[in-house]
Amino acid sequence: MQMLKDRIRKEGRVLPGNIIKVDGFLNHRIDTGLMRAMAKEFARRFDLTGITAVVTVEASGIALGAICAEEYGVPLVFAKKAKSDNIEGGLYQSEIFSYTYKKKVTLIMASQWLCENDKVLVVDDFLANGEALRGLVDIVRQSGAEIIGLGVAIEKGFQGGGDRLRAQGENVQSLAIIEHADENSIVFRGEE
Amino acid sequence: MQMLKDRIRKEGRVLPGNIIKVDGFLNHRIDTGLMRAMAKEFARRFDLTGITAVVTVEASGIALGAICAEEYGVPLVFAKKAKSDNIEGGLYQSEIFSYTYKKKVTLIMASQWLCENDKVLVVDDFLANGEALRGLVDIVRQSGAEIIGLGVAIEKGFQGGGDRLRAQGENVQSLAIIEHADENSIVFRGEE
Repeated sequence: MQMLKDRIRKEGRVLPGNIIKVDGFLNHRIDTGLMRAMAKEFARRFDLTGITAVVTVEASGIALGAICAEEYGVPLVFAKKAKSDNIEGGLYQSEIFSYTYKKKVTLIMASQWLCENDKVLVVDDFLANGEALRGLVDIVRQSGAEIIGLGVAIEKGFQGGGDRLRAQGENVQSLAIIEHADENSIVFRGEE
Repeated sequence: MQMLKDRIRKEGRVLPGNIIKVDGFLNHRIDTGLMRAMAKEFARRFDLTGITAVVTVEASGIALGAICAEEYGVPLVFAKKAKSDNIEGGLYQSEIFSYTYKKKVTLIMASQWLCENDKVLVVDDFLANGEALRGLVDIVRQSGAEIIGLGVAIEKGFQGGGDRLRAQGENVQSLAIIEHADENSIVFRGEE
């Protein structure tokens, strides 16, 4: 998606450790117009016929997920990252490794919000090692719901998480796949 | 806001410890149409002339914040709850007590996303003891930005956080203020 790639080139910053900062428009300050354009692009790439929900994970996936859900006229359901006192039993759970926080994190979702009659698009803002999406797929599969596909804003292709999910048969559509990034240049998949 | 009160009466559940569960439409599964209606209601209650950003805190405030930001044509900036490796220096910070997690939490926001030229509406999905909003107000004040007001979906009036903020001069507009809740009935402010 050219609009997103242009934005990454213009405003993204590459930090040591292959960290690509896009927090001016994607995951700290949010450009909701860009989210809306991405929601429309997912609608072109996926067959959303019969969709009943959009699924994502807190926190930074929620903005994109909310705009997508509104665009498709369905609820957003988001997985949470830790057990708070406000969530009782009846949970789908999946343990993932968070590279951001360098520890294991359990994704949880109240089972009442997703069932085998659901047909969902899973979305997230970022895909690097793919742990968050792997956990979300696991949770949706526990519910018996059908997964239309996985819609991602930015994939760090060189970290392999997206291609691992594709090799497992998931339909992963990332709107910008970064294959190489250093302080001088960002190269997207298809441009090498 | 009658639409929200009706929804709370119809779908809300009261758990021991004065916990009011509205996770079917507000903060786990999200009804984005309701978020849009709330965004329009805030636009009626606040003078949004000159607004430059909507400010909220992760995680469950983000959905409402994103829809509000799109409605008003400005970016959303959300405070985060812990320091990850992806956030460098240059932070506004405020320590709050999280009653959900029963521990101190530091709200942080990269200082580059808010400055004294900004004029912001602060929004959140829930106001109980008011700690999250107190921290958000503190962060916005550190930036020198002007606060138009605090827009809240559901306030638990009996916990006093909203009235403490009002007593400090903040313009808090909550779309439903619950004064009493038990398993038999929910009473809103103005209905006692």
